[in-house]
Amino acid sequence: MSMDIKIIKTTQPKQKPDQHKLGFGTYFTDHMFIMNYTEGLGWHDPRIVPYAPIALDPSAMVLHYGQAIFEGLKAYNTADGKILLFRPDMNMARVNVSNERLCIPEIDEAFAVKAIKSLVKVDSDWIPTAEGTSLYIRPFIIATDAHLGVRPSHTYQFLIILSPVGAYYPEGLNPVKIYVEDKYVRAVKGGIGFAKTPGNYAASIKAQMCAQEKNYTQVLWLDGIEKKYIEEVGTMNVFFKIDGVVVTPEINGSILAGVTRNSTIKLLKSWGVPISERKLSIQEVYEAHAAGKLEEAFGTGTAAVISPIGELNWDEKIITINNGEIGKISAKIYDTITGIQSGKIPDTMGWTLEV
Amino acid sequence: MSMDIKIIKTTQPKQKPDQHKLGFGTYFTDHMFIMNYTEGLGWHDPRIVPYAPIALDPSAMVLHYGQAIFEGLKAYNTADGKILLFRPDMNMARVNVSNERLCIPEIDEAFAVKAIKSLVKVDSDWIPTAEGTSLYIRPFIIATDAHLGVRPSHTYQFLIILSPVGAYYPEGLNPVKIYVEDKYVRAVKGGIGFAKTPGNYAASIKAQMCAQEKNYTQVLWLDGIEKKYIEEVGTMNVFFKIDGVVVTPEINGSILAGVTRNSTIKLLKSWGVPISERKLSIQEVYEAHAAGKLEEAFGTGTAAVISPIGELNWDEKIITINNGEIGKISAKIYDTITGIQSGKIPDTMGWTLEV
Repeated sequence: MSMDIKIIKTTQPKQKPDQHKLGFGTYFTDHMFIMNYTEGLGWHDPRIVPYAPIALDPSAMVLHYGQAIFEGLKAYNTADGKILLFRPDMNMARVNVSNERLCIPEIDEAFAVKAIKSLVKVDSDWIPTAEGTSLYIRPFIIATDAHLGVRPSHTYQFLIILSPVGAYYPEGLNPVKIYVEDKYVRAVKGGIGFAKTPGNYAASIKAQMCAQEKNYTQVLWLDGIEKKYIEEVGTMNVFFKIDGVVVTPEINGSILAGVTRNSTIKLLKSWGVPISERKLSIQEVYEAHAAGKLEEAFGTGTAAVISPIGELNWDEKIITINNGEIGKISAKIYDTITGIQSGKIPDTMGWTLEV
Repeated sequence: MSMDIKIIKTTQPKQKPDQHKLGFGTYFTDHMFIMNYTEGLGWHDPRIVPYAPIALDPSAMVLHYGQAIFEGLKAYNTADGKILLFRPDMNMARVNVSNERLCIPEIDEAFAVKAIKSLVKVDSDWIPTAEGTSLYIRPFIIATDAHLGVRPSHTYQFLIILSPVGAYYPEGLNPVKIYVEDKYVRAVKGGIGFAKTPGNYAASIKAQMCAQEKNYTQVLWLDGIEKKYIEEVGTMNVFFKIDGVVVTPEINGSILAGVTRNSTIKLLKSWGVPISERKLSIQEVYEAHAAGKLEEAFGTGTAAVISPIGELNWDEKIITINNGEIGKISAKIYDTITGIQSGKIPDTMGWTLEV
């Protein structure tokens, strides 16, 4: 696909926010990317236009049947004035994995990366430079047929929007307290858990609220069938270091194959740290703790990169991990990934793409 | 809540469609109802305005995290010129059940019924009169915060749109062929299966497409845990008449508590037909068929009312039910419910509400 991206620049640029008070996902840049899909015509009319509300028919299928997918990745300003993207090919490949499950037509992954680069270039003066900040990139696809009745839409919009962000967790890298969820279920094999689609997040909000009422930051999801095996933590993948081995739940059809998860595994392997992708029960984690062998626990995700876990509450049995402090491996992964992302550390993995 | 509903009528009424070619969910009337929710202010500004696209920020939370719910019900023109709604209180009560699961603020159910009545009155000349037609009513709520990051929205819109419809299934009351789904899962206990929310429908599209490729109209969903027990058929509840007893899966946390399901059960009880709400395995249905005791099978839902099932395919074992013909009980329920809905049969159950 060698479509040209038409660019219409804003005549009314917005004032940029204080980059020390960005929060996450609150501010948006001056432009957005849009491309349409029409059955018979394919994806067409890629364009970068001023950021503005989109007009949807009230019967637009996305609003009723949730036929939609999204992605999240980041752009960084380096000290020497370059702009780096982190593994955008992985995110765009996952778009098509999600699309396949949601019956949304395939996109051209290379063209989507080109669209991201073009948009980031147009809004490059929005990329914050303060420590821990970045430009969050949100590509997403929505079903736009004006139709009630469940079937795949015949029309879609693919959009990319940009948000300058600070740290995802206001607490920063401080270990968080996690509630082990044994009532609500995020996803089950045969469902949509492995796809990045709104329904998974809709299902998760209630459990998150209940955990926060109990003063926990997030929930640890167990499998929907036996409520025994660990799946994810909040909207992140999860890792446990047990007796020298880093263990993370295997990709099983109900958890998301995270880009940061993949990067973490690759780094650990390159360092010679034993890493195992397998079924892991919450019981095993608690037994490891009792035996003094649970060394670290952390979540991985694009937004937070690494989120150390300092405490777990499973059925009111509370355990503290690594004295509630960030572990050595957690810190090393965080420093390495954010170092590569921001250009402070040489990218020996070939993960960054210069805009 | 005694808010007044402001009414702004269109100055450009649309041409009405041929009422013999309505299809389902394709045409929309001249007006829609909108009401906003703002944290601290509650639901406010109820209004009926010309049907038109709605403007959403590209980061509107509904598009990314699926925080939304919807309902479906119908209005009918009676032969003597009245307009009837069918059990709108049940639908509005279910809105709050769905809202609670999705962390959406509660609505005033009585006010919502009033809003439906007001809108239907404004667009009453859109209610078709041909046999089998009606005015489909779609209330829905969407999260509208311009924010990325998973949490409940602080702002919402409640909308009602109207669509004059023919029969949901083009085949009409002819029994349909159903594929028993043993790969994909619609919902699981602890998830969102009992709520009427977009994510459940997003999850279902793929299985429906696979079934249609095999020349089946819809899928029969099994439970997500053991893949043994019957849950729903397509987007409907499901009933089987086995050896004189009508059996339907019990409300278990993963299936929708359908209004037509409830009406069907109430009618069967009033007729003295044995009815059992319980766990029902697909194995039991097949064994009943082998023993010559599977008498009828049918789905129930607002859109189709009753959809008889003529054939099941479970793991390539195909059975034909009632010689592929509509059963006596299925036909009687259909005739009674549609009779009450359209005012042809006296409403001894107190189910209809005059607009």
